Amino acid sequence: MNAEIITIGDEILIGQVVDTNSAFLASELNKLGIPVIQITSVSDRMEKISDALKMASDRADLIICTGGLGPTSDDITKQTLAEYFNTRLVVNPYAVDSIRALLEKRGVEVNDRNLKQAELPEYCEVLHNSAGTAQGMWFVKEGKQYISLPGVPFEMKSIWYEELESRIKERFPLPPIQHFTILTHGVPESMMADRLHDWETNLPANLKLAYLPSPGILRLRITGKSAGDATALKAQIDEEVARLQSVIGSHIFGYNDDKLESIIGNLLKQNHSTLSTAESCTGGMISAMITSIPGSSEYFKGGLITYSNEVKTSELSVSPYTLIINGAVSQAVVEQMADGARSRFGTDYAVAVSGIAGPDGGSDEKPVGTTWIAIATKKRIISDVYKFGDERGRNIQKAAIAALFMLRKELLTCL
Amino acid sequence: MNAEIITIGDEILIGQVVDTNSAFLASELNKLGIPVIQITSVSDRMEKISDALKMASDRADLIICTGGLGPTSDDITKQTLAEYFNTRLVVNPYAVDSIRALLEKRGVEVNDRNLKQAELPEYCEVLHNSAGTAQGMWFVKEGKQYISLPGVPFEMKSIWYEELESRIKERFPLPPIQHFTILTHGVPESMMADRLHDWETNLPANLKLAYLPSPGILRLRITGKSAGDATALKAQIDEEVARLQSVIGSHIFGYNDDKLESIIGNLLKQNHSTLSTAESCTGGMISAMITSIPGSSEYFKGGLITYSNEVKTSELSVSPYTLIINGAVSQAVVEQMADGARSRFGTDYAVAVSGIAGPDGGSDEKPVGTTWIAIATKKRIISDVYKFGDERGRNIQKAAIAALFMLRKELLTCL
Repeated sequence: MNAEIITIGDEILIGQVVDTNSAFLASELNKLGIPVIQITSVSDRMEKISDALKMASDRADLIICTGGLGPTSDDITKQTLAEYFNTRLVVNPYAVDSIRALLEKRGVEVNDRNLKQAELPEYCEVLHNSAGTAQGMWFVKEGKQYISLPGVPFEMKSIWYEELESRIKERFPLPPIQHFTILTHGVPESMMADRLHDWETNLPANLKLAYLPSPGILRLRITGKSAGDATALKAQIDEEVARLQSVIGSHIFGYNDDKLESIIGNLLKQNHSTLSTAESCTGGMISAMITSIPGSSEYFKGGLITYSNEVKTSELSVSPYTLIINGAVSQAVVEQMADGARSRFGTDYAVAVSGIAGPDGGSDEKPVGTTWIAIATKKRIISDVYKFGDERGRNIQKAAIAALFMLRKELLTCL
Repeated sequence: MNAEIITIGDEILIGQVVDTNSAFLASELNKLGIPVIQITSVSDRMEKISDALKMASDRADLIICTGGLGPTSDDITKQTLAEYFNTRLVVNPYAVDSIRALLEKRGVEVNDRNLKQAELPEYCEVLHNSAGTAQGMWFVKEGKQYISLPGVPFEMKSIWYEELESRIKERFPLPPIQHFTILTHGVPESMMADRLHDWETNLPANLKLAYLPSPGILRLRITGKSAGDATALKAQIDEEVARLQSVIGSHIFGYNDDKLESIIGNLLKQNHSTLSTAESCTGGMISAMITSIPGSSEYFKGGLITYSNEVKTSELSVSPYTLIINGAVSQAVVEQMADGARSRFGTDYAVAVSGIAGPDGGSDEKPVGTTWIAIATKKRIISDVYKFGDERGRNIQKAAIAALFMLRKELLTCL
């Protein structure tokens, strides 16, 4: 069994909204072992919708549409479905009950516009919407399953979780499919592919590898399919992950949905340690990343953003002499910043960054992208220099991620 | 002329990443006056990609693909294109130069795998990628234009802005289409629609309005099409913008690509004033937003992230007594924070935030989302309390934006 997702709406085709519904549905369908073979976005026009339905039914067994179920004149999915299934719109008593129940719970009176929402193509199965007035619908035609859901993401999700997921599981025998993602750092995609060549070549035919790069992080995703049982598939994937660990173990920092910020938070908690920051070019981004994690106040005490030399001196006790001799973007200054933050905030660890984010401020000796990072601990101060690129936003992002990885490495040596 | 977008990648079809490339391209193509009739996402499999290309060429004049151009074995777009255009992969000298130039600038040695990236289908036009090693390609077949771009969003965007947009404009006669965006703050979408009802109803038929909401900011985009000349169209849009200003002028804070952070930076520069920050729940995000603007070191001196009460006292001279009596999230504390930052960093202005981002820390009296914001100036300290929602990430974002709007208002009164 496989699926196609059709998202309907002019707002998608003019780029006004990013279609997140299809990623949600694709992820959920894959979890059930139903591969998605295509995602199609079309406008709110009858012939475009019915063309998309027709073509999808040539490729897929299950077709899930979202969007176009609202009460306004631009929403024409229901009329299109009625025509597509050679039927007409009628007031559906289940839909009336569903809408009444919702509005009563909200203390809102039912009006004609609401009841118009209960007009659905005849002979469809209603998928109750507990979060809105647009009902979900299930149709069957020539052995193909068609499902229509509202486009509002939280209504679509509520129908998925409350009505649809369980019905799909009940009705179809689904083969096991599993995903496992390994998070790596420090090896670019092309070099990683070289290092994994042998391992990848020897992967069993039912396991597939994908490389998913993002700034500073490369995720490796193993997808396993099996005709047999799920436990055996899991064991097979585990075995390959173990092999992978023996090849690139030192570059692996997490698995699946792990986040670097949380991993660092957990290491600090395990260490019973506290952290502070001293940021120049990253301008607060490192602290913002760390504090994006709930409960980070347990280990994060505070940070200083020192955007001028005077503030580096007054707040972090960086020597004015060092600043003049070495410049703000230098090993000596960034180490003094880290040391200054650690003593200022009285924390076990401090991370400091000083770099040239650009577009201005570069020189031949220190081009835009040059960035010094230091970690101060009770015992020592370590530092390193990085050369990033030309683009300010990405330089800031890469510097923040590099700083967190340096911190992680130091935290691991202290465990 | 119309377009279809094809995004290629297993990661899209398993829902691991949200496809943002198609929204970007759809928005840019619409700005050029090229409507997008369909967006299709397919997996990294040859027959799926070539089927999608074939079907798109039946519907559209311009077909833009993204993804599948990486150096690893799962990336097979180039082979597919070579087959689709009945040609073969050859080393493209322009691509070799482009890759060498990029890697030399980064100080990385060129290896065989990088050069493998220079193998492109014969007879394609190379679209130089200044941000990565995967080149863009332009093909023409039976009067249809095919463009292949890398899937990494910033590489795709860099090729769009540096190579593709201008070539599309040069090569095709496009009907005048113009967009003008008005940035507003302080009126939610449904209330705005009510207030603009009369104005919107009276819009000429060739002008269309779209509402683009995001946290704290509502953008209103006017799109004008014309069969005639561009100057008349511009005058027509200007006239409607003037009318709009008379209806909601006080809520307008910028136009088109203006960014709140830049607007504040410009106001500070006009005022010859300096700024510092004291952040608790926003954890550095306000400073990160301000320093995302090139040249912000001219007015931004520094900031303190005070995530614990001790640090609020030691670094910002917040009275321990005030903290005990009122709690950290209170008017008295946030005003002391702003005052403390202003004197600490010796700036003309300081902005301070203290709130409960969640998920923990809320109470009946101060539920999650409660946030105090203060602005300190030479003359006075003003403060206000906001009630945001339940979700940590959005609360932090909304607090940062609200703080910048409070600062903007205060800067305007001092001009």
